[in-house]
Amino acid sequence: MSVTPASKPSFGMIGLGTMGRNLLLNMADHGFSVAGYDKDAAKIALLAKEGAGKPVAGFTDLATFVSGLQTPRAVMMLVPAGPIVDSVIAELQPLLAPGDIIIDGGNSHFTDTERRAKAVEAAGFHFFGMGVSGGEEGARFGPSMMPGGDKEAYRVMQPLFEAIAAQVEGQPCVTYIGPGAAGHFVKMVHNGIEYGLMQLIAETYAVLKTGLGMDNAAIGQVFTQWNEGRLQSFLLDITKDIFGFMAPGTNHLLLDDIKDEARSKGTGKWTSQVAMDLELPVPTIDTAVALRDLSKYKALREQLAGLYGPAAGKLPVERGAFLGQLEQAFYFSMVITYAQGMQLLSKASTDFSYELNLADIAKIWRGGCIIRSGFLGEIFNAYQHTPGLAHLLLDEQVQQLVNEAVPGSRAVVAAAATAGLALPGYMASLSYFDTFRTARMPSNLIQAQRDYFGAHTYELIGKEGVFHTQWTPEHEDAANKQQVQVQEHGADKEPVKPNS
Amino acid sequence: MSVTPASKPSFGMIGLGTMGRNLLLNMADHGFSVAGYDKDAAKIALLAKEGAGKPVAGFTDLATFVSGLQTPRAVMMLVPAGPIVDSVIAELQPLLAPGDIIIDGGNSHFTDTERRAKAVEAAGFHFFGMGVSGGEEGARFGPSMMPGGDKEAYRVMQPLFEAIAAQVEGQPCVTYIGPGAAGHFVKMVHNGIEYGLMQLIAETYAVLKTGLGMDNAAIGQVFTQWNEGRLQSFLLDITKDIFGFMAPGTNHLLLDDIKDEARSKGTGKWTSQVAMDLELPVPTIDTAVALRDLSKYKALREQLAGLYGPAAGKLPVERGAFLGQLEQAFYFSMVITYAQGMQLLSKASTDFSYELNLADIAKIWRGGCIIRSGFLGEIFNAYQHTPGLAHLLLDEQVQQLVNEAVPGSRAVVAAAATAGLALPGYMASLSYFDTFRTARMPSNLIQAQRDYFGAHTYELIGKEGVFHTQWTPEHEDAANKQQVQVQEHGADKEPVKPNS
Repeated sequence: MSVTPASKPSFGMIGLGTMGRNLLLNMADHGFSVAGYDKDAAKIALLAKEGAGKPVAGFTDLATFVSGLQTPRAVMMLVPAGPIVDSVIAELQPLLAPGDIIIDGGNSHFTDTERRAKAVEAAGFHFFGMGVSGGEEGARFGPSMMPGGDKEAYRVMQPLFEAIAAQVEGQPCVTYIGPGAAGHFVKMVHNGIEYGLMQLIAETYAVLKTGLGMDNAAIGQVFTQWNEGRLQSFLLDITKDIFGFMAPGTNHLLLDDIKDEARSKGTGKWTSQVAMDLELPVPTIDTAVALRDLSKYKALREQLAGLYGPAAGKLPVERGAFLGQLEQAFYFSMVITYAQGMQLLSKASTDFSYELNLADIAKIWRGGCIIRSGFLGEIFNAYQHTPGLAHLLLDEQVQQLVNEAVPGSRAVVAAAATAGLALPGYMASLSYFDTFRTARMPSNLIQAQRDYFGAHTYELIGKEGVFHTQWTPEHEDAANKQQVQVQEHGADKEPVKPNS
Repeated sequence: MSVTPASKPSFGMIGLGTMGRNLLLNMADHGFSVAGYDKDAAKIALLAKEGAGKPVAGFTDLATFVSGLQTPRAVMMLVPAGPIVDSVIAELQPLLAPGDIIIDGGNSHFTDTERRAKAVEAAGFHFFGMGVSGGEEGARFGPSMMPGGDKEAYRVMQPLFEAIAAQVEGQPCVTYIGPGAAGHFVKMVHNGIEYGLMQLIAETYAVLKTGLGMDNAAIGQVFTQWNEGRLQSFLLDITKDIFGFMAPGTNHLLLDDIKDEARSKGTGKWTSQVAMDLELPVPTIDTAVALRDLSKYKALREQLAGLYGPAAGKLPVERGAFLGQLEQAFYFSMVITYAQGMQLLSKASTDFSYELNLADIAKIWRGGCIIRSGFLGEIFNAYQHTPGLAHLLLDEQVQQLVNEAVPGSRAVVAAAATAGLALPGYMASLSYFDTFRTARMPSNLIQAQRDYFGAHTYELIGKEGVFHTQWTPEHEDAANKQQVQVQEHGADKEPVKPNS
């Protein structure tokens, strides 16, 4: 089954879910002749219907699809992350000619992209991984795209992607991100930030509903107002819509009928896991991941609610004043969430030699993607003003915004802790901030404990080297000789041990 | 180089760091004739010196070491986790006979143990992974041990391990944990709990020092007193010692000279990463991992302290009363930390068919290991009373203890949040608890958002199935037909999409 294109297609898409179809339609609207492949004939039919009159062709046969493309061919996969990507590549390669370009536009794990790029390039093809954000609307009318890897291949595709990307202040929301799997890495962190922000909005909903006893209409008004001010963001925008959307045939919100068990597709989890591997703290994102998991234990929550009641009730606060503090608390926590994500990008750029330009990344996130927001303008300014900025909180403008907002966070967290209202994301953001502004942490005690029970050694202030002490009280008299300088942290050297 | 044993050794140890040597000496003290191998002659000399008069032999030649052992041979490795374990196994196998036993006593990742068990067993040998906790003192005078995998092989070793284990109420702190890599998995979670508890103690130190302005002597007294009550634990015990240990040749604590940058060897990180893979929330442990990482950004912390000062100061509280609340808060957070670890064990037992007996695990953790504490008796009682208990907080006795302690946690968290004193672990524990006692979480909003921007679908209360809606306001009028029931969450089915 196929739909005849107006001219030989210059671009092919594999995987015609809504995202794939919408990207093709977007390209066609910008005058590109394109083709799509899916083994599901129903999707080809949908593409034909939606693309009527546009230069879009659809195929259920991979060889026919590939052979009809202009050469050098450019084929993009939008299929579920994981082994399916590998099998599509395996099917595709015999049909391609050297110099053709394969693009993985899905949410592949960056380590998979790293591996595939090597294998596909060794086989004589170009390959790059590209994160695409924006959901179906974004795909149709302008996504944010994060291509990384083969720069030469990206340059070939650049006019197409710049044409279909979201545009902000006349600039397309797509840019070459960096070598290797940089594109997919950045998209993963984008999604980690997304998890954090969604958790914060959910907690805000709980404060408004439970803590302030507001009804849905009033809650919707708060989100609407916030979205008109400095908190403007895509996620608040859709939240506002959700608070206006009635369940079919009823006069209550569809939201109220939806189960409170949150699912996830893994990109938030990846972000936390990779951050831990890079030893870079992103506790607000970690919390968002943990809380999605916790939400699934519905039966256990109901049991524990029965045992540990009463449930949190109305906060003993004056609503008007508290709403102002809540707005500050949300703003503050949002800034912290972005800051964690940006620092993770900065660390990955160093550790993986991604050569990331954080200003450019903030710039292409300002439109098209799920975490787009007014605040991304501030982030862009910060990294534009100081390339190589070590942490977003170091920026002078951000500092001013944070200092203005942090009192609200303190008030909201304290009130919620007292009343038993759960605010894990707000709390993680505040404690992250308060730890990062602590010049002397209590972690010297952790080092002393580790050396005490496991001889893991410690370091001294103002003295080079690594030391070990026999800490038990009976050894104290002999401490002068017991404090042994250890040459190396090396794993096979005494006294570092594999066990504790 | 070798030391002649009293009789043919019945057990061999590879890797004679302090742990390996101490375990051998412990065995020799219990009448077992044992041998050790290390390529480092200095360690053999140390073993000879420490083991003078005991049935302990030392070798620097692997073949000589192996050939001298009683058959079937039992050889345990205590070498750093990772590729070294694989290379030792590779060196060892040609020297062994079918039926010999290889034991990995290090902190190997459970997935490595899984893989090695299969390979080694296919080669005709017995293999099991065993977590060993207790540090050097434990190894020397009684560790807690967590063997898993080949049960038949463990039965052969049981008399030896039971003899050298810590004893609590006449019971040895070792038991067969379960099949596969169950032993290493349980040891990993032990270490995850250890990270959580150490973070809580460090935060308590910060409250006492900064929040209450107490000097080291007074802080030491608090830890000493706590350790004499219901908070009794190994970690508080060594903390109390640390607060009495002077820097060599000075009259101030060595602790004060130690850098506040905490290191880690990865087992806490593994716990958090695996918990995320199992979709089981352990936010206090996650926080402890993130905070160790954060502590390493010393220069950045100093910069941010300058920008976002003043540092947290004394809390506006009455010390005596607040100390009581702090004790409650610590107790509460400690319970939550253990509860998270136990639930992770419970989840792994189901997902990996480990058939874990959580009462037995609590029992062998009561002595010898780093997380031993008075409260482990309560945990033992809880799982003894209700095998298959879904969560520690469901236990009636624990419930009473938590209800008594949670007001202290609320007071401490609220005071610290207000004053700007960082308590990330305390906060993570409280918000975990408050979320778990929430029958209706705000996560329905997360599901609505996910469906809005990514068509990820949602579920409805009281109605089977998975649904998708076109949420944009302009679609609301047509909502009756827009709410589409989706047959499957399957990845290649519409409208679930790989991108967001």
